[in-house]
Amino acid sequence: MKKFEAQVLAVLAAREHGSFITQREEQLNIELAGIPGDRHYGLLRPADSRQKWYPRGTMIANRRQISIVSAEECARIASSLGVERILPEWLGANILLSGYEPLTLLPQGARLLFPGGVGLICEGENLPCRGPGKVIADALGDERLEASFVKAAKQLRGIVCSVEREGMIMPNEPVTIAMI
Amino acid sequence: MKKFEAQVLAVLAAREHGSFITQREEQLNIELAGIPGDRHYGLLRPADSRQKWYPRGTMIANRRQISIVSAEECARIASSLGVERILPEWLGANILLSGYEPLTLLPQGARLLFPGGVGLICEGENLPCRGPGKVIADALGDERLEASFVKAAKQLRGIVCSVEREGMIMPNEPVTIAMI
Repeated sequence: MKKFEAQVLAVLAAREHGSFITQREEQLNIELAGIPGDRHYGLLRPADSRQKWYPRGTMIANRRQISIVSAEECARIASSLGVERILPEWLGANILLSGYEPLTLLPQGARLLFPGGVGLICEGENLPCRGPGKVIADALGDERLEASFVKAAKQLRGIVCSVEREGMIMPNEPVTIAMI
Repeated sequence: MKKFEAQVLAVLAAREHGSFITQREEQLNIELAGIPGDRHYGLLRPADSRQKWYPRGTMIANRRQISIVSAEECARIASSLGVERILPEWLGANILLSGYEPLTLLPQGARLLFPGGVGLICEGENLPCRGPGKVIADALGDERLEASFVKAAKQLRGIVCSVEREGMIMPNEPVTIAMI
């Protein structure tokens, strides 16, 4: 089992109805269904265009509860877009990591293990779409960024995870990334 | 998305306390947590030697709710052991398929889609252990089969699956195997 150590820089949640933008929190309590009160909390969620093999809207197991980005990859997106920085809030990220650069390429099934007990299963790349592009365009006052984000963020926009073990995550903690 | 068609030959459940041996049923009602009343039903299960990264017994997400074997692979195990047949009951299987020979090599993340709505996610090979070997040895009155089963069943003992979408599974139905 190959292991890497990284660092939690920030934890965030999307608690405002109708918005995927996240805000920083002091800690995240993680349940099997995700982060209570967060936009992506739930054991089930409706199938969308990513699960073409089910009718759209059918309730299926939610494997996209937690979104994680890396500071290094956010910096690369920013550099490619020619902007000062890309905030994890704009991407709807729940966790901002540092110290493991190729986060988005982490294989499905890799584990992220936190000292507060939480174990997350990497479910693969969070494919870039125009939603965060629009947020970035609005925040930085440049509407061209909406489309260019999707291209710039490919293989850099982080991963989605499901919960394997419950617990708590806090900023400034280490996290072990384990290839199973 | 590559697709294959196979056939459901039998559906089974382990409803007797203390035994993993399954028995044939008329149909399986599949919930997000598995087959109600079956030995492996549950959203959570205790971590065991397969999840060395957690303390043994810690409650973790159950991704081993449904066990599936193929008739072709059971026949190959039987042939290798020099016995007439290996029953899915002895392996604790919930579903017996036919028509997709290399079932055990199905990659993690492949989907099994049934006409009654059920969608299962392949979680990988069900590694052979001595439990079913003992059952086979007892059933066939040859104690050497206990150890030789483990070797003979490698990469032939079927897969474990988690539930992505609820529904019903019946014998003699087709099943679509989709590589996502």
